[in-house]
Amino acid sequence: NSELKVFTLNSNPALAEEIASNIGIELGKCTVTTFSDGEVQINIDESIRGCDVYVVQSTSSPVNQHLMELLIMIDALKRASANSINIVMPYYGYARQDRKARSREPITAKLVADLLQTSGADRVIMMDLHAPQIQGFFDIPIDNLIGVPILSEYFENKNLDDIVVVSPDHGGVTRARKMADRLGAPIAIIDKRRPLPNVAEVMNIVGNIEGKTAILIDDIIDTAGTITLAANALVENGAKEVYACCTHPVLSGPAIERINDSKIKELVVTNTIPLGEDKQSEKINPLSVAPLISEAIIRVHERQSVSILFD
Amino acid sequence: NSELKVFTLNSNPALAEEIASNIGIELGKCTVTTFSDGEVQINIDESIRGCDVYVVQSTSSPVNQHLMELLIMIDALKRASANSINIVMPYYGYARQDRKARSREPITAKLVADLLQTSGADRVIMMDLHAPQIQGFFDIPIDNLIGVPILSEYFENKNLDDIVVVSPDHGGVTRARKMADRLGAPIAIIDKRRPLPNVAEVMNIVGNIEGKTAILIDDIIDTAGTITLAANALVENGAKEVYACCTHPVLSGPAIERINDSKIKELVVTNTIPLGEDKQSEKINPLSVAPLISEAIIRVHERQSVSILFD
Ligand SMILES: Nc1ncnc2c1ncn2[C@@H]1O[C@H](COP(=O)(O)O)[C@@H](O)[C@H]1O
Ligand SMILES: Nc1ncnc2c1ncn2[C@@H]1O[C@H](COP(=O)(O)O)[C@@H](O)[C@H]1O
Repeated sequence: NSELKVFTLNSNPALAEEIASNIGIELGKCTVTTFSDGEVQINIDESIRGCDVYVVQSTSSPVNQHLMELLIMIDALKRASANSINIVMPYYGYARQDRKARSREPITAKLVADLLQTSGADRVIMMDLHAPQIQGFFDIPIDNLIGVPILSEYFENKNLDDIVVVSPDHGGVTRARKMADRLGAPIAIIDKRRPLPNVAEVMNIVGNIEGKTAILIDDIIDTAGTITLAANALVENGAKEVYACCTHPVLSGPAIERINDSKIKELVVTNTIPLGEDKQSEKINPLSVAPLISEAIIRVHERQSVSILFD
Repeated sequence: NSELKVFTLNSNPALAEEIASNIGIELGKCTVTTFSDGEVQINIDESIRGCDVYVVQSTSSPVNQHLMELLIMIDALKRASANSINIVMPYYGYARQDRKARSREPITAKLVADLLQTSGADRVIMMDLHAPQIQGFFDIPIDNLIGVPILSEYFENKNLDDIVVVSPDHGGVTRARKMADRLGAPIAIIDKRRPLPNVAEVMNIVGNIEGKTAILIDDIIDTAGTITLAANALVENGAKEVYACCTHPVLSGPAIERINDSKIKELVVTNTIPLGEDKQSEKINPLSVAPLISEAIIRVHERQSVSILFD
């Protein structure tokens, strides 16, 4: 077997450290700097000839910067004779641009797949892809890990009574069902609809939530509009208390303020995207995906099935 | 012949306006916006089906942002059935990363070429590529226009006496020779060398500059260290006055301060990179490349030779 090396770029250095330490190796040495004019420069400071290299980088904000860092790193690794270049991209940016919703729109999620492959990526390990179809945008192997087991375990250990798992929209019902199975709980769905054009949306709740502890689950929380409106609707309709959780805390714009002002008691997230200084809130509790990702890396490296991690 | 359309993105809107107006058309309508999390969204607001589309975008600072805008636009144009996608990239970012100067370095100029082609570019029109070899990084047609005629014409019209054209380093001698031919002037070369390791560089001047009006020419002026040291050395060694010129005014970091504090009387540049608010100086005089680029676009579109523009 070739030697395994893990490198980090600038999006998730703490997560990468944790992954390397779980695997029992030091992070590979490389230097990412920026020239005076803003161009990214990368130097790999140790030989990686013949190695299986894993690069940890989410394409979180600043997305274009993080993506270019990654592509440049892949180019450098390829030219330095890596045996395989494996991208660990806990959060896949541009995933919501995955189809032509209107005429003459790009499909940027596909473009990103093409760019990664063109630069020389051999495999991508991701988590909770916004649309599983994005796997089909690649011609290289993809492992799409899921956050539901980590999030469910947290709530299981809390020993909450009379739970209902709630999907904030129709698109997330499968995910809510998975969590509900793990918690032995029923599900409910927020069924938003616009009764007439130009009339405000109505938040209709399908399922019984009265007196229950509701756990809202989503893959991404971005500006937190959907999730906070959903939480408030649940409380107004009789839920006892509302927790929320997601894998990817994008938390842009008004997100933190909305969460703080909402009826959400606690928001449980993961560290696929680190919570920067501007994303701190007492309500937010980040769980680490490092154990899951380290296990996946070891299994991939030793040619063992990764699907066992999903069960 | 298919209909010609010109679009602009965010790097050079004023140049693109000038180009469209020279050609006698309106700029194509498209909207480039940024989502709350920083992801770029592009909508093309008019049909371009079957059209020959020219997109004006320099990959100047912020380089990664401008490059991703361009790649996303190309993706959108391809999916909207353009007949051909022609990139007008007056300034090619990352051009100085065109070889492995050290072990395990990327060749980002080649990566950018691959990204442009992967996304769907059919042709690129550029100006004064930092290394002409970068043309070989592409498998699509490249037209590399040159700034020397525009810069030379400006100095010709100034009717300066007793000119010498000076290259600030060995790499730029060919360019200085081209300008000198146009001005009927001799050349000189700044021959920097380090007499001993860890001893300051010596600026040796090869050629006669005594009592002459020196015109320094370079392709890119970035932090302006080289050009201002060269100008001061010329004055110290007896030049009467010193002008400087370049095609690409990157002007990052301390550039403006250095130019203002230097012996350079006037710095003539072009608008391949616009001079933003932070790049204003009374010494800097920008000339427009719009007439040259419009002519090139018309010639490419009508399948006429472009090389005539170089003579
Ligand atoms: N970064 C982004 N931030 C907000 N909305 C986005 C973003 N990217 C794509 N979208 C929009 O989100 C919608 C797709 O989201 P979804 O229906 O959840 O798959 C489309 O209308 C996109 O235009
Ligand atoms: N954006 C940049 N700013 C400053 N130096 C750079 C940049 N990109 C590359 N370089 C360095 O410039 C040198 C190449 O410049 P040149 O010798 O003029 O082709 C190499 O040592 C590069 O590492």
